[in-house]
Amino acid sequence: MSAKITHFDIHDVRFPTSLTGDGSDAMNAACDYSSAYIALHTSDPTLTGYGMTFTIGRGNDIVCSAIAAVAQQLVGKDTEELFADMGKTWSFLLSDSQLRWIGPEKGVIHIASGAVDNALWDMYARSRKKPLWKLVVDMTPEELVRSTAFRYITDAITPEEALAMLKEREAGKKEREAKVRELGYPAYVTSAGWLGYDDAKIARLTKDAVQQGFNHFKMKVGQSLEKDLKRARIIRNIIDNPEYTTKKVDPKSIAGKNAGPTGSVFMIDANQVWDVQQAIDFVTAMADVKPWFIEEPTAPDDILGHAKIRKALKPYGIGVATGEHGHNRILFKQLLQAEAIDVCQIDSCRLAGVTEVLSVLLMAAKFGVPVCPHAGGVGLCEYVIHLSLIDYIAVSGSMERNVLEYVDHLHEHFIYPCSINQNGRYNVPSNEAEGYSIQFKESAFAEFEYPHGTYWAGALAEQQKEKANGTNGVNGVHH
Amino acid sequence: MSAKITHFDIHDVRFPTSLTGDGSDAMNAACDYSSAYIALHTSDPTLTGYGMTFTIGRGNDIVCSAIAAVAQQLVGKDTEELFADMGKTWSFLLSDSQLRWIGPEKGVIHIASGAVDNALWDMYARSRKKPLWKLVVDMTPEELVRSTAFRYITDAITPEEALAMLKEREAGKKEREAKVRELGYPAYVTSAGWLGYDDAKIARLTKDAVQQGFNHFKMKVGQSLEKDLKRARIIRNIIDNPEYTTKKVDPKSIAGKNAGPTGSVFMIDANQVWDVQQAIDFVTAMADVKPWFIEEPTAPDDILGHAKIRKALKPYGIGVATGEHGHNRILFKQLLQAEAIDVCQIDSCRLAGVTEVLSVLLMAAKFGVPVCPHAGGVGLCEYVIHLSLIDYIAVSGSMERNVLEYVDHLHEHFIYPCSINQNGRYNVPSNEAEGYSIQFKESAFAEFEYPHGTYWAGALAEQQKEKANGTNGVNGVHH
Repeated sequence: MSAKITHFDIHDVRFPTSLTGDGSDAMNAACDYSSAYIALHTSDPTLTGYGMTFTIGRGNDIVCSAIAAVAQQLVGKDTEELFADMGKTWSFLLSDSQLRWIGPEKGVIHIASGAVDNALWDMYARSRKKPLWKLVVDMTPEELVRSTAFRYITDAITPEEALAMLKEREAGKKEREAKVRELGYPAYVTSAGWLGYDDAKIARLTKDAVQQGFNHFKMKVGQSLEKDLKRARIIRNIIDNPEYTTKKVDPKSIAGKNAGPTGSVFMIDANQVWDVQQAIDFVTAMADVKPWFIEEPTAPDDILGHAKIRKALKPYGIGVATGEHGHNRILFKQLLQAEAIDVCQIDSCRLAGVTEVLSVLLMAAKFGVPVCPHAGGVGLCEYVIHLSLIDYIAVSGSMERNVLEYVDHLHEHFIYPCSINQNGRYNVPSNEAEGYSIQFKESAFAEFEYPHGTYWAGALAEQQKEKANGTNGVNGVHH
Repeated sequence: MSAKITHFDIHDVRFPTSLTGDGSDAMNAACDYSSAYIALHTSDPTLTGYGMTFTIGRGNDIVCSAIAAVAQQLVGKDTEELFADMGKTWSFLLSDSQLRWIGPEKGVIHIASGAVDNALWDMYARSRKKPLWKLVVDMTPEELVRSTAFRYITDAITPEEALAMLKEREAGKKEREAKVRELGYPAYVTSAGWLGYDDAKIARLTKDAVQQGFNHFKMKVGQSLEKDLKRARIIRNIIDNPEYTTKKVDPKSIAGKNAGPTGSVFMIDANQVWDVQQAIDFVTAMADVKPWFIEEPTAPDDILGHAKIRKALKPYGIGVATGEHGHNRILFKQLLQAEAIDVCQIDSCRLAGVTEVLSVLLMAAKFGVPVCPHAGGVGLCEYVIHLSLIDYIAVSGSMERNVLEYVDHLHEHFIYPCSINQNGRYNVPSNEAEGYSIQFKESAFAEFEYPHGTYWAGALAEQQKEKANGTNGVNGVHH
C-alpha cells in the first residue's frame, strides 16, 4: 500500500468574479475568487492528493510559489509514514526555520502550508476510500489527538484533556452520523447580502433563499449606516414575513439567536472596516434590526478589541463573530481565553490545513463556543462541510447552533461539488473517491488558469488592444 | 523638485552565514542572512530610494515577488505628492484589497510593504539631504502625526493624544540631539551568545565585548537548562569581574536592570521555543544568573501568554521582552494594553516600514514602555539606529534605558555602514546622502545575489559536482 511522493503540479486559477460584484464588501470592492492549488503525485498512479488555499486575485502567484517551497519538502517521503502521525507530519511541514521566518505561522507561508497539509489529508482519505470527514470521525480518540497541533496551545488545552473530551463523545458518534446523513447540516446564506448588489437584487435573492428553505441570512455592512439600515430592513421585512416562509423552524435551532417572528435569523458582517469604538457605535445604532452577531467588526488580530466590543454589545443582545482571517491556532486560543467571541469562524484555508483546524475545534469545544466555519469564495464550501461534520460527530456533538455558511458560486468547477438539500441544509459528502472534495475539473484549468487559460488569454489580449486604442482596460484583468 | 517614480529593481541577496554558525538559536539552527531589496527609481537620475526587508534564506525569493507586487502600485506617482502625506501614502501601499487578503497586514505581504515603505522614506530623506532620523526629528508634531498609521489603534492612542505628547517633547529636542551626537546611542551585544558557538568562543567574544566598552550582553537559551546555565555562568563570570571591565558604568543607565557588581546587565533570548508554562518553569530555574529579561519566551502572537509569563516572573525580578516577530501595530497595541512586556522590541523590517514603526513608538511612549529595537542579521543595525534616534529625540525623550542591539556582522556590504564608538555606543549617522543607510555596495550583488552571484554560482556548481560524485552537498546551498 505504501507509495513515495514523487512530484507536484501547482495551478494559479482565478475566476473573474469582479465582473459581477460577487463578493463585494466594505473592505473588498473587487474580488477575483482564486485558488492556489496543488496536486501531489505519488509513485502509485492511482493515488494523488489535491489541496488548495483561497485568495481573491492578485498575489495568488506569490502563494503558489510558497506552496512549491513547502511541498518540496515532501518529495521522496513515504505516504504511509506521513499518514501514520499527521500531527508530526504537520510539524515537519512547518519546521523549515528559514521558511518559518517569513511568517512565522501566518500569512502567505502559512496558507501555503495549509494547502499542502490539505492535499496530504485528501490523499490520506482517498487512500482509505473515505471522504475526509469520515476518515477523521472513524479515528480513535488517540489517533485524532495525534493528528492535532498542540504547540503553543497547551495552556488552553492539553493532549490529555482533548483525549478525555473525545472519549466522552465516543458514545453518540454513530447516532449523530446517522442523524446528519438523514437531515443534512444546517446552512446559512450570504449570497443576497453583498454590498455590490442593488436593492431589487437583494430583495429577489432574499426571497429565493427563503424559498430554498434557509432561515439564517447574512448581510454585509460598513458602507454607510443609513444605507446599511435600509438594506437590512429590506431583508428583515422579507425574512420576517410569514407569507414568504415555506416551513416552520425548529425552535431549538434558533434559541438565543435574536430570531424574528418567523424564526428567521439575521447576521451582519463588517469585514474589518472599523476601529474598536467605531464598531461599538455603528452596531449599537443597528440594534433594532436585531442581528444575531456582528462579524469581523475590526482588525482580525485584535483579541482585546473584540473582547471590548463584545462586552459593549452584550446589553443589546448582539454577539461577536470572527475568525475567517484568524491566522493561526494561537489567535483562536486567545479569542477564547479572552471571552472575545460568541461564534468561532474558522477558515479551512487560512489555518494551516486540517491539522490546525482540529486544534481549534478542540479548543472551541472545551470553551463551549460554537464553530461556524467561513465559506464562500471558491472551494471553501466544498472544504468546510467536512470540518463541520467532524465537529458535530466527533468533537462538539452539537450542530443546530453551528450553522455553516453557504454561497452558491463556482461549485460547477469541482468534480465533487457540495450541495444543499430542499431544507436549506448541506448534504453529507459520501463518495468514497472524493477525499476532501477539492479536486477541480480539468476544464477549470483550461479556462481560468492565470494567465494562460482561455478566459485570461482572451481578456489580456483585449486589454492590449484597448491600450493600443487608448481606451481603458477591461475589468477582471490584472497587471 | 518633483519627479515621477518610473521603475524599480529587486535583488535577492543571500549571505552564506549558515557556514559559520552565526545567528544560530533554539529555533533557527542554520540561517543564511538575506535581504529582499528594492531600488526605486525616478525620472530624476539623482534621486533613488533603497529599501529592504530581512529574511534568513529560503523564501527570500517569495518576498521579492511580493515586493514587486506592492511596488508596482507606485509607478507613475509623483514623489512630492507621496512625501507630502506619508501616512496617506502608507495606507495607499497597503490598500490593494486583493494583496491585503494574503496577509492581512502580516507575513510576506506585510514585510514586502515594509521594504517599499522604507525605500520611499529613504528617497524622501535623500531628497532633503538628511539622514532619515534627522528628516523625522525635524518634522513638526503635526507632520509626524500625519506620517503615522493610526488605523485600528485609536482605542490605544488617538492622533490628538499623539500630537499633544509630541508637542510636550518639542522643548528638549535640540538638546537631546546634541547630547546623542556627542555620546552616541547605547548598545548591547549578542555576538557572543549564539547557540552554535562553543564555550571557548563564547568566553573569548564576551571578553572582547567587555573591552569594547559594552555593558549589556545577551545569550540565546532554550537548548537545555543544564547547558544554558553553564554558558550563562561563563558569561556572567566575565562580565561581573572587575578585572575585565575597563570603565565605570553610569548607575542611572542600569537602574532596575538586574545588574551585577560591575554594573553589567545580562539578558536571555529563547526565540519562541516554549509553551507558556514551559517558559515559566525554565526561566524561573535560571533566576540565579539574574537576567534583566527573557526575550521571546513563546509564540510571538501570544499576547495573553506573554502577560501570564510576565506576571509569573515578576517576583524573580525578571522582565519579558518581545517584538522582533511582532507582525503589526495591532499586536503591539495589545502587548501594551495587556501589560505583557517590559521591553518593546520592534523590528524595522517586520513592521511595514517607518510609518508603522512610528505608530508603535508613539504607543510605547504613551504606555511608558522602553523601545529596544531588534537588530543583527543584515541591514537591521543600519536601520534601527535611525529609529532609536527618532524615539529618543522626538518621541520618548529617553535613551539610557533603551539599549539598542548591535551585532558585528555584514556591515562591510553597505555604503554607509553603522558603527560603534569606543564606549560601545552607536555613532549617529550624519552623511547627508545616506538616507536610511541601507544602500548596498554593488559588490554585494556581484557576489551574493541568489542564485547568479559569484558565490552562489560557484557553490551550486560544486554541489552539482558532488551530487554527480555521490557525496553530500555543501552547506549554504539551497534547493
